[in-house]
Order: sequence, then structure tokens, then C-alpha cells
Amino acid sequence: MSEPAPAREPRRGREARRSARAQRSAASVPYITRKIPITEILSAEGLEIIEHNADTLLQDVGIEFRDFPRALDLLRAAGCDIKESRVRFPRGLARKLCATAPAQYVQHARNPGRSVLIGGDAMVFAPNYGSPFVHDLEKGRRYGTLEDFQNFVKLAYLSPAIHHSGGTLCEPVDLPVNKRHLEMVYSHVKYSDKPFMGSVTKPERAEDSVRICELLFGEEFVQRNTVLTSLINANSPLVWDSTMLGAAEAYARNNQACIITPFILSGAMSPVTVAGTLTQVLAEVMAGTAFCQLTRPGAPVVFGTFVSTLSMQSGAPTFGTPEASLAIFGAAQLARRMNMPFRTGGSLSASKIPDAQAAYESAQTLAPTVLAGTNFVLHAAGWLEGGLTASYEKFVLDFDQLGAMHVLARGVDLSENGQGMEAFHQVEPGGHFLGCAHTQMNFETAFYRSSVADNNSVEQWQEEGAKDAAARANVLWKAMLADYQPPPLDPARDEAIRAFIDERKASMPDATY
Amino acid sequence: MSEPAPAREPRRGREARRSARAQRSAASVPYITRKIPITEILSAEGLEIIEHNADTLLQDVGIEFRDFPRALDLLRAAGCDIKESRVRFPRGLARKLCATAPAQYVQHARNPGRSVLIGGDAMVFAPNYGSPFVHDLEKGRRYGTLEDFQNFVKLAYLSPAIHHSGGTLCEPVDLPVNKRHLEMVYSHVKYSDKPFMGSVTKPERAEDSVRICELLFGEEFVQRNTVLTSLINANSPLVWDSTMLGAAEAYARNNQACIITPFILSGAMSPVTVAGTLTQVLAEVMAGTAFCQLTRPGAPVVFGTFVSTLSMQSGAPTFGTPEASLAIFGAAQLARRMNMPFRTGGSLSASKIPDAQAAYESAQTLAPTVLAGTNFVLHAAGWLEGGLTASYEKFVLDFDQLGAMHVLARGVDLSENGQGMEAFHQVEPGGHFLGCAHTQMNFETAFYRSSVADNNSVEQWQEEGAKDAAARANVLWKAMLADYQPPPLDPARDEAIRAFIDERKASMPDATY
Repeated sequence: MSEPAPAREPRRGREARRSARAQRSAASVPYITRKIPITEILSAEGLEIIEHNADTLLQDVGIEFRDFPRALDLLRAAGCDIKESRVRFPRGLARKLCATAPAQYVQHARNPGRSVLIGGDAMVFAPNYGSPFVHDLEKGRRYGTLEDFQNFVKLAYLSPAIHHSGGTLCEPVDLPVNKRHLEMVYSHVKYSDKPFMGSVTKPERAEDSVRICELLFGEEFVQRNTVLTSLINANSPLVWDSTMLGAAEAYARNNQACIITPFILSGAMSPVTVAGTLTQVLAEVMAGTAFCQLTRPGAPVVFGTFVSTLSMQSGAPTFGTPEASLAIFGAAQLARRMNMPFRTGGSLSASKIPDAQAAYESAQTLAPTVLAGTNFVLHAAGWLEGGLTASYEKFVLDFDQLGAMHVLARGVDLSENGQGMEAFHQVEPGGHFLGCAHTQMNFETAFYRSSVADNNSVEQWQEEGAKDAAARANVLWKAMLADYQPPPLDPARDEAIRAFIDERKASMPDATY
Repeated sequence: MSEPAPAREPRRGREARRSARAQRSAASVPYITRKIPITEILSAEGLEIIEHNADTLLQDVGIEFRDFPRALDLLRAAGCDIKESRVRFPRGLARKLCATAPAQYVQHARNPGRSVLIGGDAMVFAPNYGSPFVHDLEKGRRYGTLEDFQNFVKLAYLSPAIHHSGGTLCEPVDLPVNKRHLEMVYSHVKYSDKPFMGSVTKPERAEDSVRICELLFGEEFVQRNTVLTSLINANSPLVWDSTMLGAAEAYARNNQACIITPFILSGAMSPVTVAGTLTQVLAEVMAGTAFCQLTRPGAPVVFGTFVSTLSMQSGAPTFGTPEASLAIFGAAQLARRMNMPFRTGGSLSASKIPDAQAAYESAQTLAPTVLAGTNFVLHAAGWLEGGLTASYEKFVLDFDQLGAMHVLARGVDLSENGQGMEAFHQVEPGGHFLGCAHTQMNFETAFYRSSVADNNSVEQWQEEGAKDAAARANVLWKAMLADYQPPPLDPARDEAIRAFIDERKASMPDATY
């Protein structure tokens, strides 16, 4: 089922340098603190129209909370109008119920130096989530395994451009469905010391995720702090189902964070316009957040948005489109007016391979994601084929883009050194700055240094095999995995977690659901 | 030297549809009118620091105006301090001399429906400029020829996402250097009806470009209107040379537009910091613009900026880097404070082939270019290998990105139809919007439709040959060229222009400089 681990032999030359560079390509900060202004696309008037419409939608059409009576009880008591599973919010009520959600929170990592701030000026990058398939240049496309999952955890751990270990980096399809979450959470704990996400596929799997964290961090710490940020997707349009509500409830009750995310293919799961889609996003987020806050006031919630457009000819989802960019910018503005952290974007593409389409679409998702001031960026690396596939090569190609975003987010250095006026007194008109003292002083850190771009002459590039970016990335991820060393983990905690997992697994049949 | 033209036979099926789509993929507007706010990265305080420093630079170090006494005379008379070829501007003088440059101007095309506005909220896309080499997937990398040049003119003519025919789309290396400009300008006139650029490689070639326009538009029309926008690059750092000054003078004297552009590899030709580079950009632009305005007050000038970073290890230029993005944003802000149209950006990359590197770097150049509110975007399509190569495949891949930018720039539709509230009354929670009346009504124009992305299932993509984006682009550009029909050109004018060109050529030796 799994293949032998890559042989550990010392590598030399270019590969080793590339691997080393990929691991230090961005300043190793636990998260980005944005210094550049936010790009806003919608006017205040436009935002008010959408907010008004979302309130109208919540009041007139309402939201389904299906098969989850506890939610209906809470929402009825809070003043909602309930008919069967349909919940209608009198104008203004949903927003009011969301007001106890914190503007930002710290998600703790087992390595305190890796804890992340989520909200405000902070920006956190987390990798690809949820792909049943994986792809690399040699073995092509195939179902993901636990080994693939662990490889992606290790790669994300090694990249300073990634702040968060994420969640379902790929589906470990070689494990029974009902036991996967235990090994996924364990892999995050064991092979990384970055913060991670919990399971949401059943409420008891969310509880298992919390239990593992209690064994890792201590029970009291978990009740007082947030150690999990997990993904709760709406069943758009306008439905919250019992699986997601149950998982959200489990996390909120334990003071753990939920990313409340309308997952929308616009035109199929929402109106075919950006403003209509944003209206629905806001209504669904407010309803889901209201439920979390009624469950435990003050429980951290992230305003999530995933909007893809459709090919109206084939019905296929499309990525990196201008309408998706506008939705990213607009949703970020709506979230800020809710005073909530915001999640969207990533490095999204419909391409099947890490080619020019993958890169154009990813970059045209990532650029608005960053400029919109997104706080939590899921799918920041590795995503291909509309999320069906996690690509090894794209994983490290995207790392490089994320590293560049660290520098962009710092903005323009206006210190005396940054102004660089002394350089003009060191270099005559018509001269060159390469050797001047100011350049020499800033040589090492002057410009972002890509780990995968080839900037050499065409002759040198040809001599080195005329590799495209994907082929270079193939060399790089293998070199990184060969270099991987696990972060230390307290053996007693490791053993306690393993014992819990083995006991849980022993109590379960092998189920495929 | 040239190969047979592609056979004109009717094509069927997917290729024909892709070709047709590429030719209508963006609304066919003569230029973009931006409806979204501009992204600003620098604070007013930061801009003032850079402006102050630029004035200090102009006053203390000054700018070389080499081998061009007429410039020195004009600048001396205007109050500059001249020592040999060094021109120092008392603080504030340069900006004052630039004040007569218009905030925007119309560049007329021979087809009046294709005339472009340059400045303000207008955004104009022009293709790749200046590459000695061309590349396509079958024939690889080779020197450009006149046939290649004409092919690129035709492709740019066919793409509704490109507004401007550009200038030296590639170098027609099969022609003697001293005669190239005549055939290049003629090719723009003959094979396109979009506006174009004139020659700048010698002052008399600029004059030739103006003469051809006089034969095309009429002498009086040219004196009263702008029909050429041409590229005048500084010899950075802080030098204007006689070739560029002579060409700029020829254009300004004829009321034709100059893009005054510091062409800077930061770290070599400017300080290694963004703020230092922006200071130099501003100083060089102000000095060049002042000269144009002294030559003919009111002559249109575009504030140009081309900033690439360097690999500080190899000295190779790098593209799509975060520092280049910051320079794009910052220079756009400086230009707006000069009340001048702004040129920068494009779809730039150091990659040798249209792979993921090419696409990431291009998109990370194009996104800031558009969001910064750039008015004239040169190198918007086709650029590879740091500009050394014009790529056929990348040309059409970039068209697609430019088409998407048209939609992004329109912003969010907040009309009643755009708000889409009626859709929520047509679809129940949990239902889907694909068939509802609101979707049906907006079906055709709802989402930007890419001409090169493959959004199909992996199975269908494999059935169709598992082509990457570059391979699909290869099919597309050949289909477009096969479909090409020239725009009508008045035979009398055509004949007059040809006669002028043939006479000029007959008077010249075949020179290689």
C-alpha cells in the first residue's frame, strides 16, 4: 500500500541549495502582519445594499437548519421565527447575535513559537484541503494515502511560507473512512509543530479531535484556549445540515474555532451574479455564526467564503476568474464590517497539471486574496483540478508564491536605509549600483529569492536540461522530503495520544462512511 | 527566409470554437474604463518623502543630458544649473516644467472606433515590445523575422482584449537595421487598424514614423492630433542620451506622445531598495518630461516605469517579484500626483517557455499593474525570457488573462439585476439556481469565459490528449492566424505609404546599426 521512504543520502550541489533555499525563502515568522493597505472594491453604499439584501433574505426566505433540534431551540429562544426547519431572522437579529464573536483570536500550536493570530492585520497560510487524489510528475494521478498525507504535512512543516498545517491535506483513502480522522490529526501532531485543523465529518470525530488536543496541550489549556480551527461548510443555498451543525457545536462548546464557510459554485448554488452571491454568503455566515454564538458566546468564528464560478456551458467549476476575484474582495469587506476574521481564496485552479493554466489561475486567486486582507488562507498550496487533486509539484511551486506574498505584505521600507539616498552619492550618473556600499550592505535581503524560478540565460537553462517549472519543483519536493527531520514531541504525550487513538480504532468497525 | 503562409482551409469543431471565442472573449471595447477603486500602497507621507528625495536628487546630483546641446540650451533657459552635460534642477523646478503635460489624451487609430484614451480611468493594453527572438512550441527559439512581426500584429488585431498594436512586437532581424522601422510601421498600418507606436532608434526614424502617419491620417490631422505613442527609455541611472532625446524631440515637436520610461534593473541601475528606485524613477521621468514640455508645451507625455529586480547572486533580472509589484503600485501613485498618464507592468517573466513560472510571474505583474490603475500597459502579451523572446503561445495565453482584467475592472454590478434578489424567490433553500429565470436571463454574459483554460473532467481532458495550456495555446494561435482577414485600407493611402517607404529604402545602404 505504501512505498518505501526515499533513501536518506546526502545530496549535493544545486538540489541541496534549492531545498535549503525553499526552507528559508521567507522570513520565518509564525504569520504575516500586513503593513500594506487593504484593497476595497465595493463602496460603502454597495456594501449597505448587500447587507440590507442579506437581512431581507434572512427575514423573508430564511435558512434551513436541518435535523438538528437543538439549533432550532436556541434560535427560537433568541427571537427567530421557526417553521419546521426553516429559520427566519427578524431584520438585524442575525448580526446582533454574531456580535459576541471575537474580532481575532490566537490559535495555539504545540510549539508556542508557531502559534498564529487569526484576524486583524494577521494573515495565515494553510495548505490544500480535502482532495481525494494526489498527483506527481512520476506517478501521475492516484488516490491519496496516509503516506501522501504525511508527506504533505512534512512539506508544509518545512516551508517557512506556510504557517498552518491545515486539515485534510489529502484524503488518506487507504484508511477506513471512520478511522481516517484519528490518523490525520495524529499526523499533524507527530510530523509538524504548526497549528492544525480538526475533523468535521461527524460530531464525534470533532470530539475526538478535541480529545487528542487535550492529551497534547492539557485539558485545562484547551478549555481556556483555542488550539483547533476547523472548516464548517454550509450546504448552500441557505441550508445548514446536521453533520456540520453537530461538528460546529462540538467545537464551539469546547471554545474551539469554526470557519463558517458558504462553499458556493456561483450560478448553481447561488445567483449567477457577484452581488447576489455575496448577499447569500453574508446571510449564510451570519446564520451559522449566530448558532455558534448561541452555543457558546465568545467562541471564535471565522467568516469564511469559497466562491467559484461555473462554466455556464458545461457546468464545470472555474477558478481564477474575475468574478471570483470580485467576490473575494467584496466578502472581505463584509467580514470586516462584521468585525470578524476572514477566510477565503488560496491558490485555486481547474487545471489537471502544474502548467501555465494552474499558475495563472492560482496567482489570480492569491493576489486578490492577499490584497483583500484575508486573515486565514486555506488551499494556499497544492490545489489542482478544482480541489480534486493535491499536487506535490504545485505544493512547492505555491510555497514560492506565498513566500513572495510575505514580502509584498511588508510594503515599502521608508527607513533611511530604505530611502537609499546615500547610494546616489556613491554612484555617478551612468554608473552602476552593484558594487556600491549601500547595495553591498543590503545584498543578502534586498530582493525576494525564488526557490523554483529559473532566471538563468537560455544557454545555461538548456545545459541544465531545459526543465520547466514543474520539473524543477519535482526535484525540489523530493529533496525537501529527503531532508525532513521531525520536530521533537514529548514521548509521554505521544504515547497517550497513540493509546487513545488505538483504543478508539479498536472500538470501531471498518466503515466506509 | 519566410515560410509559406498557413493554408486557409475551413476548420471545424473545437479549434474553430476556441478561435472564435478568443476573438470575442472580452467585450470589444476600444479601451477599458476602470470602475474599481485604485489600490494604493504608499501613504501620503511616504509619497512626500520620495518626492522630496527626488527633488534633492535633481538638485544635488542632477541628470546627464548627453550629446544633445539643444536640450541643454532649453533647460538652461528654463532655470537649470548646467555644468557640461550635467543638469541640476533647483528644487521644484522640474515638477513645474512638467505641469503643461496633459492629464490625458486620445491616441487616434485609423479606424476611429479603435482610438484610445490614455490617462484618467482608461486602461490600454499593448503587446510585447522589443524581443530579438521568437518562440513557438514546434520551431522553438529563433531570431524574429518580418513574418513573425506581422503574425503578432495580426494576432493582436484579432484579440478584443488588446487595444493597441504596440511597436516592436519582435525585431525583424531578417531586415537591415536601418530599414526595419519602415516595414514595422507599415505592418501596423496594413495588418491592423488599432493605434500603434513609432520608431525611436534614431531621430530620423521617428520622423519617418510621423511622415507615414501623415500619409495615413493627413498632415493637418497629425499636427492637431496624437496618432503615435512611442517609447523613450532613460539610460538609467540618471542619463538621457542623444538617441532618445532626439526621438523624443521629433515626437514632441510633432505633438506626438512619448512614454518617458526609466528602464531599471533595480540593484544594478538604481539603488537596491524600492523607495530608492522610486526616487530615481521620479527624478528621471520629471527630467525627461521637462525636456518634452520645453520642446513643445502641451505635448502628450506618459509617466513610464519599468522596474525589474535582480538575482543578487547571478545578476540575472527577475520578474513577478514582490519588490517589482511594490514599485508598480508606488510609481502609479507618483504619476497620479504628477497628473500624468501612467505606463508600467505587463505580463513579464524570466521563464524561457510558457510554463508555470511564466504564468505565475506574469500574473503577479499583471494583477498589480491593473489594480494600480495603470493607463498604458506595454508588454501585456507574449513576453518571455526577460523580454528577449516573444512567444506565440504566451501571446494568446496572455490575451485570455487580459480579457479577464476587462471584467475585473468593471467591478461589481449593483443594478437590480446584479443584486439578483428575485433569484432567491425562484429557488428554494437546498435547490439550485442553474435553471431559474434569473440565471437563464444572465446565462450568456454571466461569467468570463476563458479561451484557453480547460475546465473539463480529468477523463475528458485525457481523452482529448492531456494537453497542457501551452499546447492548447499552440492550436489556438494557429487557428487565429488561419482565420485572419485584414481590415480594409484605402488603396490610395496604402500606395502613397508604400511609395514613401520604397523611396526611403532606396536612398539607404543596407546598414546593420
